[in-house]
Amino acid sequence: MKETVPNNSPTGRVLSGMRPTGKLHLGNYMGALHNWIRLQHQYDCYFFIADWHALTTDYADPSQVRQNTLDVALDWLAAGLDPENCTIFVQSHVKQHAELHLALSMITPLGWLERVPTYKEQQENITGKDLTTYGFLGYPLLQSADILLYGTPGQPLHVPVGQDQVAHVELTREVARRFNSLYRTDVLREPQVLLTPSPKLPGTDGRKMSKSYGNTILLTDPEPVIRQKLKPMVTDPARIRRSDPGNPEVCPVFDLHKVFSSGETQQKAREGCTTAGIGCIECKGWLADAVVADLAPMQERRARYEAEPALVQDILNTGAKRAALRAEETMHQVRAAIGLSEPAQ
Amino acid sequence: MKETVPNNSPTGRVLSGMRPTGKLHLGNYMGALHNWIRLQHQYDCYFFIADWHALTTDYADPSQVRQNTLDVALDWLAAGLDPENCTIFVQSHVKQHAELHLALSMITPLGWLERVPTYKEQQENITGKDLTTYGFLGYPLLQSADILLYGTPGQPLHVPVGQDQVAHVELTREVARRFNSLYRTDVLREPQVLLTPSPKLPGTDGRKMSKSYGNTILLTDPEPVIRQKLKPMVTDPARIRRSDPGNPEVCPVFDLHKVFSSGETQQKAREGCTTAGIGCIECKGWLADAVVADLAPMQERRARYEAEPALVQDILNTGAKRAALRAEETMHQVRAAIGLSEPAQ
Repeated sequence: MKETVPNNSPTGRVLSGMRPTGKLHLGNYMGALHNWIRLQHQYDCYFFIADWHALTTDYADPSQVRQNTLDVALDWLAAGLDPENCTIFVQSHVKQHAELHLALSMITPLGWLERVPTYKEQQENITGKDLTTYGFLGYPLLQSADILLYGTPGQPLHVPVGQDQVAHVELTREVARRFNSLYRTDVLREPQVLLTPSPKLPGTDGRKMSKSYGNTILLTDPEPVIRQKLKPMVTDPARIRRSDPGNPEVCPVFDLHKVFSSGETQQKAREGCTTAGIGCIECKGWLADAVVADLAPMQERRARYEAEPALVQDILNTGAKRAALRAEETMHQVRAAIGLSEPAQ
Repeated sequence: MKETVPNNSPTGRVLSGMRPTGKLHLGNYMGALHNWIRLQHQYDCYFFIADWHALTTDYADPSQVRQNTLDVALDWLAAGLDPENCTIFVQSHVKQHAELHLALSMITPLGWLERVPTYKEQQENITGKDLTTYGFLGYPLLQSADILLYGTPGQPLHVPVGQDQVAHVELTREVARRFNSLYRTDVLREPQVLLTPSPKLPGTDGRKMSKSYGNTILLTDPEPVIRQKLKPMVTDPARIRRSDPGNPEVCPVFDLHKVFSSGETQQKAREGCTTAGIGCIECKGWLADAVVADLAPMQERRARYEAEPALVQDILNTGAKRAALRAEETMHQVRAAIGLSEPAQ
């Protein structure tokens, strides 16, 4: 049964986004989307597909951005984000993101951006891309604009992020404080981190599930592909022969069981593994059953949305309009606080 | 008699802007505005009041920006910019300026901005303001966006600037070339510098007329103020006594005669000066007559516009709408070239 919460929920707003990197995998789902689906019933939620952010690193070849944006939208809807319960939109469709980014750029010391931990880190880690651009330096400030646009004085603004994004939210809070102090206002609401428990999901090679490792299971993978991907998955490396008992606590397959399988199946797998009562193939079969069962309703929903591209477009358009109305309220106050003249409506 | 040229003039577009620093003086007028008034009859002209640019240096105290914006608009209209013949608008009213700035930021190397001659120069020269901000570093790129928004493939785009701004237009051309080459397009039109003859106008102390020197004559100065400001104006320093003959070629007052007085008056002043036939006070009186005569029709027009604030607002609103339509055409093509999805209209 669907919970419904009025749009101006007294519990506050939630803002979060995702870069359009392509079809989502189980890691993306458990890392963020799964939480969002719960949050949409508790808060007034704004979720955006961060296509401008994709350009900060992929400007030299953005050929996939449009398709990826659509795929992310479809995956969100498939996973259960409900446009009746939350606002879904594409970042570049709401011009106020660029506008507040420009306004905030005026007051933001270069040093604040140069010191963002991910700045040097990513420049070193992402090889083969020239990231010494003005836009890449400014992307944490664009995130600040993304967030601050959706605050309202007197109402809490939550940003569900992982631990690695906490520094970005802290920068946003600093920028908001600097703006409010310079212009003697409280227009920009400092966001609160909503640290969400997100289990680290191993990929089929045992490392963190990540597109760049090629070890993912996509939300859109059909049953045979899921079974095929799980079959060679890395397990407890000490369990060499079928007759060796295994240790589920060091087995990536069991990590996935913990997320996707019922308590009963987990118990059965643990017993079978530690007693050498089952082989890994059997255990992986049970995991595949659970994953397939979880993804089946999503894939059905996705198929329905894929059959109606105009509906998806309409959801994104409606979302962008709703977001722009909200964002324009903030920009109106931002312009007034700075002392810019007001454009005609 | 008014020349009229259709809006889609085959001779191309002109784009230029001015920071809202307050009421304009004769230096601003002769340096730019005087040319614009001529250009509006020859090109499809877009003139904008660069309020975002004002914030790049004045973010810490933008209290004057709104009034200054209005004063500049009034001075433009007073001087003879005709909203029937050109498009006048406020930069921040057209969101596409922020949007293209963000898009261009993705592809612009930091080094290009750090090497803009005025960047280090202004940081050193403008004391008492902290200009180590992200926005100040990016202001030449904002200028590039300002310009490139109004280009159309196949139609020349001219930017009337002084010699000191040529480097900024060169950056704009580089950014356009980089964009076009990365995205295999010709969407961004490289602008052409329209170097306009602008006599260096001395202020009352003999230095370049500039607000920061406090040596200006404003377009709005009433006759008694003009006479009062000109009376102590610096002249040929070698002409100490009334009986000394003077040298007009080294006299700042004569520099102003060359701009504002008729050939006949100039001839009369030259003769009187070199023969010690007149004193400087008499010469300055003739100059004042000429300046007052030039400014009188402007001041009359300004009074009429001041009496109708709603009309001025309407001119700026109409201008912003017209500019936004034009800018949105460019952004539409920019989004398509990059491969961003298109927002609903």
